[in-house]
Amino acid sequence: MKGVIVEQPGGPEQLHVTELIAPESEQGDLLIKVHNAAVNRTDIMTREGKSGYAKSPVIGIEVAGTVVDANGSGTFSAGDRVMGLVNGGGYAEYAIMPAERAMRIPENLSFAEAAAIPEVFLTAYQTLYWLGKLQKQETVLIHAGASGVGTAAIQMAKQLSDAKVIVTAGSERKLNFCQELGADVLINYKEQSFDEEVLKATDDRGVDLILDFIGADYWDKNLASITQGGRWVLIGVLGGGEVSDVNLMAIMAKYIQLTGTLLTPRSDAYKADLSNEFAGVVLPHMNDGTIRPIIDSVYPLEQVTEAHQHMEDNQNIGKILLDTDADES
Amino acid sequence: MKGVIVEQPGGPEQLHVTELIAPESEQGDLLIKVHNAAVNRTDIMTREGKSGYAKSPVIGIEVAGTVVDANGSGTFSAGDRVMGLVNGGGYAEYAIMPAERAMRIPENLSFAEAAAIPEVFLTAYQTLYWLGKLQKQETVLIHAGASGVGTAAIQMAKQLSDAKVIVTAGSERKLNFCQELGADVLINYKEQSFDEEVLKATDDRGVDLILDFIGADYWDKNLASITQGGRWVLIGVLGGGEVSDVNLMAIMAKYIQLTGTLLTPRSDAYKADLSNEFAGVVLPHMNDGTIRPIIDSVYPLEQVTEAHQHMEDNQNIGKILLDTDADES
Repeated sequence: MKGVIVEQPGGPEQLHVTELIAPESEQGDLLIKVHNAAVNRTDIMTREGKSGYAKSPVIGIEVAGTVVDANGSGTFSAGDRVMGLVNGGGYAEYAIMPAERAMRIPENLSFAEAAAIPEVFLTAYQTLYWLGKLQKQETVLIHAGASGVGTAAIQMAKQLSDAKVIVTAGSERKLNFCQELGADVLINYKEQSFDEEVLKATDDRGVDLILDFIGADYWDKNLASITQGGRWVLIGVLGGGEVSDVNLMAIMAKYIQLTGTLLTPRSDAYKADLSNEFAGVVLPHMNDGTIRPIIDSVYPLEQVTEAHQHMEDNQNIGKILLDTDADES
Repeated sequence: MKGVIVEQPGGPEQLHVTELIAPESEQGDLLIKVHNAAVNRTDIMTREGKSGYAKSPVIGIEVAGTVVDANGSGTFSAGDRVMGLVNGGGYAEYAIMPAERAMRIPENLSFAEAAAIPEVFLTAYQTLYWLGKLQKQETVLIHAGASGVGTAAIQMAKQLSDAKVIVTAGSERKLNFCQELGADVLINYKEQSFDEEVLKATDDRGVDLILDFIGADYWDKNLASITQGGRWVLIGVLGGGEVSDVNLMAIMAKYIQLTGTLLTPRSDAYKADLSNEFAGVVLPHMNDGTIRPIIDSVYPLEQVTEAHQHMEDNQNIGKILLDTDADES
């Protein structure tokens, strides 16, 4: 089968489509014919040699496809359309997925739409609900609102929690898209000081919850934007991972809860629990179209280098996908 | 009545016992004849002009005494022995306490013992359970184990949760006392590197929960001592409030939840809820003697300067108290 490996740690040019032996599935696993895989920032870190989560030499952590061998799973059968997280091995024609975390693809969604769901929606769900404990009608600040996780978080915060959603993004195009998804307050971080805008939009109260993909660059402004007793979930460090001069007394005086998280290195059991809860709570909203996966672009597997480059250019709105059987279509 | 005021922001010498008009209580308040007040670090900050929580010119945030006027409270009557937090005004012969947060003093405890309970036990309870979510048989690292909050936390973690308790302190005398209270692992932070000892004591796993009174000085070692998914509650900055170079990726990779808190500035409703839950859960253990208040020393009100000096010398084990009616006894 075709699959993408990393020649040696480095830039997008290190990605190579090569011929590999298809993976073998064991009891508890589904062997899946992959139709689409999605590109994630964690794949870039793996490519750069900065994370070593993947058990497979093939990178990629989420796929949508068709079950080829269910290995006696009581839940799935050959031919079922499934999506979900894989422990590496996603950028390939065949992949292995633990059956207990596989999710059935809603009938109205294509494989490409399905591949745009697992990583960003599960991350956003985990962040908003499991860690951020978002309550009905609270106010949430979502940075990088047009990103994959951002677009998922905006929709869930609105549809599931009727939250007031404040987003930041770096262009009018991105902000307009966030508004279409339901965002209430739009802040162009290149032109406005987001903490001042947040305080204006909340009558100086600040937000109940921050989804922070940025880290160091936004530290002081996030601290100024959060209300007393607020929750702050750190899920990325696009703006740097080292903060100098953290004022602990400010964290105490505001009773802030700061939680760091990553999804990819979590245990199989955690991913299964998260996937199952998400499938029960959110997939009905995808069936009726009130929440939808957001696709930026689809690249044939052979253009994986361009796909990574596109993510690094930071111009995408929603997910960047790979089509693993473009030849056949 | 006699009461202690601060001449001007500064050292212990700024504390003066003076003659004042007794406070007037309103509906919802208890007027209390104070027998003992306790000294807290927050009083030192108020004395230094660094916190402005107190509504009263008299400092002090906890007392034990006798109800003089219950203002029609359905729960308490004149003559009842009560203890609890006050919104300032504690270092005096009479004080006002919102009735909804007052706690009845267990029969087997003296006023002095009772005055040693509210602030440190409520802080420790809030930290261990409301914020730290301590579960049965988890492992908890308690810094400043011989302090007021430390001695309260050790006992509750053992008696309520059968936790494995690891403490740090700066002398053998303090560590021996922690052991008497039930601490399982004793670390002299002046002679040992506490993170190395914590990892030894937990088979390299780290602790589930850290009670951190220290802040900056212990930052990196706390980060090394906590397990993946651990909770870290920041309740003091005795070792400095400014951390340089915080590694956010480490917080993400370990899925750490860091929560800052202070008790004194919390709302009346919060203090009432906390006091009521604590009274229900912990006071039965004080009735049967399995958990006990720890008194370091009792000073007559006139020696309030010496009492503050003693706390700043950092040699106390447990609470430093004031006796507001030493003249009469």
